[in-house]
Amino acid sequence: LSVAPDPEAHSLNGALNMFAVDDLQEAGHQFQVSELLAMQWKSQRDVDDSLAPTVGEFYHPSQDSKYAFEQGVQSEDISLEQEKLRWADAVIFQFPLWWFSMPAIMKGWFDRVYACGFAYGVGEHSETRWGDRYGEGTLSGKRAMLLVTTGGWASHYSPRGINGPINDILFPIQHGMLFYPGFTVLPPMVIYHTSRMNEEKFAAHCAELALRLDSLWQTDSLPFRQQNAGDYALPALTLRPDIAPGESGFAVHLK
Amino acid sequence: LSVAPDPEAHSLNGALNMFAVDDLQEAGHQFQVSELLAMQWKSQRDVDDSLAPTVGEFYHPSQDSKYAFEQGVQSEDISLEQEKLRWADAVIFQFPLWWFSMPAIMKGWFDRVYACGFAYGVGEHSETRWGDRYGEGTLSGKRAMLLVTTGGWASHYSPRGINGPINDILFPIQHGMLFYPGFTVLPPMVIYHTSRMNEEKFAAHCAELALRLDSLWQTDSLPFRQQNAGDYALPALTLRPDIAPGESGFAVHLK
Repeated sequence: LSVAPDPEAHSLNGALNMFAVDDLQEAGHQFQVSELLAMQWKSQRDVDDSLAPTVGEFYHPSQDSKYAFEQGVQSEDISLEQEKLRWADAVIFQFPLWWFSMPAIMKGWFDRVYACGFAYGVGEHSETRWGDRYGEGTLSGKRAMLLVTTGGWASHYSPRGINGPINDILFPIQHGMLFYPGFTVLPPMVIYHTSRMNEEKFAAHCAELALRLDSLWQTDSLPFRQQNAGDYALPALTLRPDIAPGESGFAVHLK
Repeated sequence: LSVAPDPEAHSLNGALNMFAVDDLQEAGHQFQVSELLAMQWKSQRDVDDSLAPTVGEFYHPSQDSKYAFEQGVQSEDISLEQEKLRWADAVIFQFPLWWFSMPAIMKGWFDRVYACGFAYGVGEHSETRWGDRYGEGTLSGKRAMLLVTTGGWASHYSPRGINGPINDILFPIQHGMLFYPGFTVLPPMVIYHTSRMNEEKFAAHCAELALRLDSLWQTDSLPFRQQNAGDYALPALTLRPDIAPGESGFAVHLK
């Protein structure tokens, strides 16, 4: 399952998507593709996401999302994507990096498909248990991988590169959007300097992608810390003082 | 100028927006508000963003954006927002934090309004000069501030909090989307734990917001390093080895 916002098969992302589809087909895998632009995916989360009247007097995104999810009255485009996620063993999220994040249409996929009760607000929420999230949840047991293209050079995204390290730029996505509802997250495949693409480079990227797809189940995942495995103090949800003492930042959330 | 995706004036973001508008009005400021959901802002960047035929045989987002910007044939909604940016001395970007980023509709505002030639691809691009960006560019001299609400607790976003430090989560936005085209970026105003809002807390947040709005021109900005002020090696665009030696991550890009 690939969520690719790319508008044209003639573009790099379109071509990569076609290559991936051929590769998966040849390997005998079953897969579904969500091509968001072609689907004319609705990006904005709003009152129409529920087929029922608002729960309260006014629209409340989380409350109405939760009600619609639990009562089975979500907009059909949302429930269809949730079904794809339940069906899949692994999900590739493919997008060009625009302004250091995903294109709006893919953010809108997360904003809407990640309903309350489905991707967040799952499990017991109390002072001693902060839900099934960060390693647990609806999507646990499934693998996810980002396939990202960017015009910038690899050095611009290196540990001291001006854009910031790519791992940190992708942390809110990989940790906050994939690990959060339970995905096991694989290292991303990032293609840099896309303005200087040629046939030789494209072939090399395809070869790498084929390798990544073939080894999806053998690849070591990013070792994010599970929320409910004892590493975090409740309810503050800060890393226990004896773990990585004195350190802070995104990196402390990886073992 | 505030870009608020909030659908209802009855919500926290709607109420904050109304408060800000009243406050600016009383202080005698001129301002414009872009309420994205009310404007039915189009989120996806696509071939319709240019009124001209595609430059090449197929749609190419950057190339067609650049042509439309330079030839004055951009979709009108895009050029109107660019005019607002040119007109404004300061811009407040107000949004609820959804999945550790802005809602899709606001991302779509950046994806589309930030045209090639307007927000990127500005100035000389060569091996010795990588454009006017990160502190220089079309929007230099203007101030920008994020006004962000989130359901999570402040501790969850603290230096060792499970979500990651809020400054790091906002770095791709503050550095990559605001500082990039030239904005002077002020520290964000972040409101946590929004599910436990009451009149007393709301009044306190309004008082803080009023203070922030009144002191927009006296507040120290985030000391991001300018790309073209000598701190970065070209063309790798890595921080010079003698600056913050041995350190890496987002923090090295602040003085």
